[in-house]
Amino acid sequence: MFNKVAIIGLGLIGSSIGHATKRGKLAGEIAGFDISEDVRARAAKLGFTDAIAPTAEDAVRDADLVILSTPIGAYKNLAEAIAPHLKAGAILTDVGSVKGAVVRDVAPFVPKSVHFIPAHPIAGTEFSGPEAGFASLFDGRWTILTPLPGADGSAVQNLKKFWQGCGAQVEVMEIAHHDLVLAMTSHVPHLIAYNIVGTAHDLEQVTEGEVIKFSASGFRDFTRIAASDPTMWRDIFLNNREAVLEVLGRFNEDLSRLQRWVRDGNGQALFDLFTQTRAIRRSIISAGQDTAAPNFGRDKKDQ
Amino acid sequence: MFNKVAIIGLGLIGSSIGHATKRGKLAGEIAGFDISEDVRARAAKLGFTDAIAPTAEDAVRDADLVILSTPIGAYKNLAEAIAPHLKAGAILTDVGSVKGAVVRDVAPFVPKSVHFIPAHPIAGTEFSGPEAGFASLFDGRWTILTPLPGADGSAVQNLKKFWQGCGAQVEVMEIAHHDLVLAMTSHVPHLIAYNIVGTAHDLEQVTEGEVIKFSASGFRDFTRIAASDPTMWRDIFLNNREAVLEVLGRFNEDLSRLQRWVRDGNGQALFDLFTQTRAIRRSIISAGQDTAAPNFGRDKKDQ
Repeated sequence: MFNKVAIIGLGLIGSSIGHATKRGKLAGEIAGFDISEDVRARAAKLGFTDAIAPTAEDAVRDADLVILSTPIGAYKNLAEAIAPHLKAGAILTDVGSVKGAVVRDVAPFVPKSVHFIPAHPIAGTEFSGPEAGFASLFDGRWTILTPLPGADGSAVQNLKKFWQGCGAQVEVMEIAHHDLVLAMTSHVPHLIAYNIVGTAHDLEQVTEGEVIKFSASGFRDFTRIAASDPTMWRDIFLNNREAVLEVLGRFNEDLSRLQRWVRDGNGQALFDLFTQTRAIRRSIISAGQDTAAPNFGRDKKDQ
Repeated sequence: MFNKVAIIGLGLIGSSIGHATKRGKLAGEIAGFDISEDVRARAAKLGFTDAIAPTAEDAVRDADLVILSTPIGAYKNLAEAIAPHLKAGAILTDVGSVKGAVVRDVAPFVPKSVHFIPAHPIAGTEFSGPEAGFASLFDGRWTILTPLPGADGSAVQNLKKFWQGCGAQVEVMEIAHHDLVLAMTSHVPHLIAYNIVGTAHDLEQVTEGEVIKFSASGFRDFTRIAASDPTMWRDIFLNNREAVLEVLGRFNEDLSRLQRWVRDGNGQALFDLFTQTRAIRRSIISAGQDTAAPNFGRDKKDQ
């Protein structure tokens, strides 16, 4: 499909792209690079690339598809460094959870001869690093492409086919809308999970041991999300500020209302909300985006 | 262990207690009752009791251990109805997520000859009804006993042994402290999950289809919790108001601070919080209260 694919940043997503590209036979050659010498050495052993390059510039040379998969705070310097080495006609893409800031940071450096198509695979786990990747991470999940106005149609098609080859379903979306949708489905949920895990840690009257022992009452689900990569998430919140604050404003309004219902003992309003939210869960399961197994199937024993 | 155990309320928890009691051979006979005729008929077929009684009064007659496992809003009337029929020397217990309100509603009706020991198994799934129960639900999880001052020591020991026989670890706790700990580890997390799923449903700029498709970015974890039984959760919030509002107040303070960090672009503060919360996740896994598998193991494929 591509003669050479270059993956810059070999963490959970970069390594999973390597595995999925090999599984799908989507590239004649996969070159990888990571800023960390240690990660480069570990990645070389894991074998999800054909070669680990000593620099990003070397990795992208002659590549038909270049994928940025570092935390987005690194994109600007990286784009500036690799831009002169990109092959004419190549596709430059990324995997960042924010798209407006990526265009702001990367687009100014991209040569006219290169097709820059921002993208975002909606998949992940709470683990990070090259060992965390696996080939099926994107299977059945969605990847969103956010091409700029006037983007080359056949380049967009090729990138779409690449992601489908990695197992994903593909949707095209406008940049600002992507950033708002992700603020709602990902960024604010993570912020809230980080926050409540922080509250539990700080609450004087409840010991950390109690929080841990009795976490199966609901809290443990939040800790999974709040265990995600800190650098990646710092960069997301620094770069999607407006959409995050907008959704958070709505969340806060709704929480104030719910707080009032609890204070007033408004059982009917509570019951109605709790009934409505069940329907959304069922839709997610019907859409194949989650398992119907109780507790996500993690307690499988003699059920 | 007991000649006769009576389970009143045959939903997820009641049916799981039946299964676990049979597995552990903890009772000579298990009698069950549910207010719903339909549930009684389904439970009779499932066989996790030896007999389904036509009334709660019949179920508790001659029982050595009576377990209330209905939503806690039903306890008061139930306690009043069964109290005259309880055997002298019997243990009366429950499984409610709130303990202060349970004592308020139940204790006034309990005859002096009966040992009333409130309890709370910290286990569950997002499913409800008699079909949702299974024998291993309590394995490795904690059950908290909150005996009243002056409770009979050997009755408390017997109840402890019963729960251990069901696979649980047992801890004894003071009532008000239980209600605060659970507000932190369970009630407020559920309230927040219900709230954010509600916000996503109401947000005009993002369609429900988008929320569902892109839920794998974090949101889907919240929907599992927000799919829990509406009646049970309504009753919890109506009956643990003070502790819930106290913890929610702390959550809101912390969220305001986090919101300010996002607004100010305070990357270091965000990074530090996100790093701290990872440690709590690791402690929960070490304590055996959750799986270390990525995404709770729900995406198991070729990993």
